[in-house]
Amino acid sequence: MKGCVIAVGSELLTPFRQDTNSLAITARLNEVGVDVRQKLVVGDDLEDLSAAFAGVLTWSDVLIVTGGLGPTEDDLTREAIARTLDRPLELDEGLAEGLRRRFERAGLPMRANNQRQALVPRGAIALANTRGTAPGLWLERGTQIIVLLPGPPREMTPMLDAVVRDRLAPRFGGASLVRRAVRLVGRTESDVDAQAEPIYSRWRTGPVPIATTILAMPTHIELQLSARSSSEATAAQALDRAVKELQASFGQAIVSVDGRSLEAVVGELLRDRRLTLAVAESCTGGLLTSRLTDVPGSSAYVERGIVGYSNRAKVELLGVPEDLLAAHGAVSEPVARAMAEGVRARAGTDVGIGVTGIAGPDGGTPEKPVGTVAIAVQYGDVTRVSTFRLLGDREQIKLRSVQAALNMLRLLLEA
Amino acid sequence: MKGCVIAVGSELLTPFRQDTNSLAITARLNEVGVDVRQKLVVGDDLEDLSAAFAGVLTWSDVLIVTGGLGPTEDDLTREAIARTLDRPLELDEGLAEGLRRRFERAGLPMRANNQRQALVPRGAIALANTRGTAPGLWLERGTQIIVLLPGPPREMTPMLDAVVRDRLAPRFGGASLVRRAVRLVGRTESDVDAQAEPIYSRWRTGPVPIATTILAMPTHIELQLSARSSSEATAAQALDRAVKELQASFGQAIVSVDGRSLEAVVGELLRDRRLTLAVAESCTGGLLTSRLTDVPGSSAYVERGIVGYSNRAKVELLGVPEDLLAAHGAVSEPVARAMAEGVRARAGTDVGIGVTGIAGPDGGTPEKPVGTVAIAVQYGDVTRVSTFRLLGDREQIKLRSVQAALNMLRLLLEA
Repeated sequence: MKGCVIAVGSELLTPFRQDTNSLAITARLNEVGVDVRQKLVVGDDLEDLSAAFAGVLTWSDVLIVTGGLGPTEDDLTREAIARTLDRPLELDEGLAEGLRRRFERAGLPMRANNQRQALVPRGAIALANTRGTAPGLWLERGTQIIVLLPGPPREMTPMLDAVVRDRLAPRFGGASLVRRAVRLVGRTESDVDAQAEPIYSRWRTGPVPIATTILAMPTHIELQLSARSSSEATAAQALDRAVKELQASFGQAIVSVDGRSLEAVVGELLRDRRLTLAVAESCTGGLLTSRLTDVPGSSAYVERGIVGYSNRAKVELLGVPEDLLAAHGAVSEPVARAMAEGVRARAGTDVGIGVTGIAGPDGGTPEKPVGTVAIAVQYGDVTRVSTFRLLGDREQIKLRSVQAALNMLRLLLEA
Repeated sequence: MKGCVIAVGSELLTPFRQDTNSLAITARLNEVGVDVRQKLVVGDDLEDLSAAFAGVLTWSDVLIVTGGLGPTEDDLTREAIARTLDRPLELDEGLAEGLRRRFERAGLPMRANNQRQALVPRGAIALANTRGTAPGLWLERGTQIIVLLPGPPREMTPMLDAVVRDRLAPRFGGASLVRRAVRLVGRTESDVDAQAEPIYSRWRTGPVPIATTILAMPTHIELQLSARSSSEATAAQALDRAVKELQASFGQAIVSVDGRSLEAVVGELLRDRRLTLAVAESCTGGLLTSRLTDVPGSSAYVERGIVGYSNRAKVELLGVPEDLLAAHGAVSEPVARAMAEGVRARAGTDVGIGVTGIAGPDGGTPEKPVGTVAIAVQYGDVTRVSTFRLLGDREQIKLRSVQAALNMLRLLLEA
């Protein structure tokens, strides 16, 4: 089964922007046995798009297109595919009604150009967009399948998941595809791969073959496992065994086996034990508290967060002794500990965290280079303090500091 | 002048690897007036490659191919282009001799397959590789130009520079492409497009035609403008005039005309005036302070951030009167104002911000649905307070609240 992915958008033909959707799409197509033979990027031009679609449809069984489904004049994917397939564009009443309701709810006027999003080539089936206004489309021509998905990744991803699960997977052999996402933190990709490779190379040839992909995300390493079987239960059981093998090998480096984020796992640990939390941050600038509060319901356990960016704020708001700052510097384990203790005592919470470091690009010294981050986590009468040397630019160091702090908290609560 | 970039390599069709060469190639082609109309990724397969080359050569004036020039069996770019152009592969004696000397110098045996790298389609001109064994090739068919470059970026880049400087630039009279990125906030994509379309439709046919792309990012709308002219100054002047037209039409909705982020613009306003800032957040959970501190050097103006997630924290840390919370609810303009005033007074800063809202998914009421966010910004003796009804899931509402707060601050400082 030959597949092709086309990313649409003139911005993707500039030196500044790159298509990344095709990576996720390729991963999902591979799982259902579709081999991606070509990827294209085409600009917002009706002629170029029609020519590209026509060319690809001379050989491709499955064509996935992302982008160009928005409401503006330069969103031409619908028109181009209608022209290529020689089908008229027709107003889909269901889509038009949904758009009207969406705008009504938001109290916004619906402009004429928004109506364009309800135009579909004859015979197309609309795919629901749970996170935006642009619907996706499913089209067939003979045995060929054409799927149009929105460009923004957060809209594209859930639609891709749904279309693979509900339409492509059943079509290609009726076999059930079951997936697991195992997340690890505190390890590098090559390190995880070297340790896991002997394990998952065995899986490939087992009675229920399991395909594995390893992905390095900014916040974690993810092992994506997928098994296909005529029975969903059989595939799920094989994956359960596989996940147990990984857990035996990686232990606490595994954060979750169902794709949950580190902050969601930490949140559940806190909520289950009815614990409350206060956060004192410096170099992470509020990102740690923000990530904790990304979890719905986090107001049950996050009591407060203090971003003590200046030394004065650390003294006034957190009670960090001035002589401690003078003796050890703001970026030091004693100060991280004093921040955790101070915010916890003042907030009256069960848990306190303190993070202080140098996010750069300036402020590093030979002794404490950019990326030096001291983190303290306090719960009950236990305080854990660690110093990290993190790599990357300012935003990466912030993000990696947050992951390190969340992970220290997880390990302390799981201990 | 229409261009196309093809990246060759089956690894670039997996979920794990991405072509990045095409970004550098696009930048250099644009500089000499070649407009990249399509990018492709094709695997190491003779049929697929020949078909892709043949398809692209039906329309493209300049085709740049990277990868597939190595010595191994799966390096098929030379064979495929020879087949597409219907030219025999011939041994280039100069290349063969160069390879022999290279291996001799390295003290390595030259294997038979290395000899393949000296095979070129008839009429091809070899391009020197200063950092590897795979030579590049320059081919012409009528007025069409085909350039084959190696895949590894460190080999590709110097060869690209040389071929642009020595061959493409002299050929194309040096038409320069200049770009601008205009960022807007507080407006929707369709709204911006409806207003800007009459403006940029005129530009397309002006003496120096300007092409425009509109992009909806999670944090802003971006209009990307590009103009080409034989003189870089002429193109830049045309763009300066175009940007001024947009500024006249959109006024303060335009955040920057050089791609700077909202937080960077706000940071510059604060820094230029030597102002300091304190932030009180509730629903944004620290994200506002985090975004402000994403800017290098922000410690010069960000004094502190308080995430008063509980009502108790709002009272204790920000001095919000309890009866205000009781009378109006935590999500209200009076409370937002009290938060801004409280954090500013306690921190002793010039500027104070207060943000309180309902990020959801729970906590909404008919009167104050999820997405209701009250924001107050205070500077000097001016306080501005607004209530927003934001759409989206929890993370989007957090992000949109942050953008709204940063934008209110920008407008107050620019007033």
